[in-house]
Amino acid sequence: MTSVDIVTALALLQFIVFGFQVGGARSKYGVKAPATSGNEIFERYFRIQQNTLEQLIALVPGLYLFSRYFNPHWAAGLGVVYLIGRQIYAASYVKDPAKRGPGFGLTFLPAVALIVGGLIGAVLHGIGR
Amino acid sequence: MTSVDIVTALALLQFIVFGFQVGGARSKYGVKAPATSGNEIFERYFRIQQNTLEQLIALVPGLYLFSRYFNPHWAAGLGVVYLIGRQIYAASYVKDPAKRGPGFGLTFLPAVALIVGGLIGAVLHGIGR
Amino acid sequence: MTSVDIVTALALLQFIVFGFQVGGARSKYGVKAPATSGNEIFERYFRIQQNTLEQLIALVPGLYLFSRYFNPHWAAGLGVVYLIGRQIYAASYVKDPAKRGPGFGLTFLPAVALIVGGLIGAVLHGIGR
Repeated sequence: MTSVDIVTALALLQFIVFGFQVGGARSKYGVKAPATSGNEIFERYFRIQQNTLEQLIALVPGLYLFSRYFNPHWAAGLGVVYLIGRQIYAASYVKDPAKRGPGFGLTFLPAVALIVGGLIGAVLHGIGR
Repeated sequence: MTSVDIVTALALLQFIVFGFQVGGARSKYGVKAPATSGNEIFERYFRIQQNTLEQLIALVPGLYLFSRYFNPHWAAGLGVVYLIGRQIYAASYVKDPAKRGPGFGLTFLPAVALIVGGLIGAVLHGIGR
Repeated sequence: MTSVDIVTALALLQFIVFGFQVGGARSKYGVKAPATSGNEIFERYFRIQQNTLEQLIALVPGLYLFSRYFNPHWAAGLGVVYLIGRQIYAASYVKDPAKRGPGFGLTFLPAVALIVGGLIGAVLHGIGR
């Protein structure tokens, strides 16, 4: 599952970069901890990071669930779509939150496909025994 | 660990449904991104999703830690209690946040049991070698 | 990977304790759900918990990724640095959010080291086949 491990590590590093950008926006726009609101641009960076967290909690287990029952390279491929989709999501959200839809879909759909695939694989495996 | 995989996939799909409900409340109550406050009902849906995220970060590793040292079907059983408890939590929180306690307990306790069980299993295994 | 399992369980229990402290601050300072702001001290406890969630999503997969390619005891050692760093982070954040830097660094750096190490290990393993 080397390819899945590589995609997982890249998705986590991408999230860490989004976290750095929140820290940068915090100091640039003068939003002092513990506040997480008060400046629209800071809030955009913050929500990009938080939404990515919401997706990673599903994506990472999904990658390994799917890989347990189907070809791990398919999981890694869906993970690559996720990685590209997240970059599009972040870039479009910062410019205009109303335009975040397409990037969101490109990361949401691979995550759902991995989990539903893993579920189907596990159920078929359970029936087969 | 097929049964644990099934429960994990269901818990992630349940979280994704809670996310959809946040999106629905966002458009229904006119809370524009990046805001996450401003309407009480939206905030309830948002907190249901966020609290579920806080529990999943513990539940998912807990399911697999426990399964490594004890019968995975027990882990899956605790996971089923979690799934039911989360539905109760979400349904009661939306109606009245002050009534969220019982549903919360039904998901918090299985998660803690899985982690403490996994910790005990790992320590006993480490001593036994 | 017993040592990694023990560190993972302890990191999750540490997060659960931070969650308890949020609940305690909620009742002590009268911040009623679904609100997550309105009292500075409550907000500090809440951000400690949320920031720990943001780190755990990277730390837990990082521990196992690293362990797959390198000595798991090194991963567990980095995990112990994380555990101590998080206690320092939480203690200093509650007193003064501006002083949270050193504790943050002590948990951020081990998490990044685990993920980058896991990535390097996976890439080298992939090339070597």
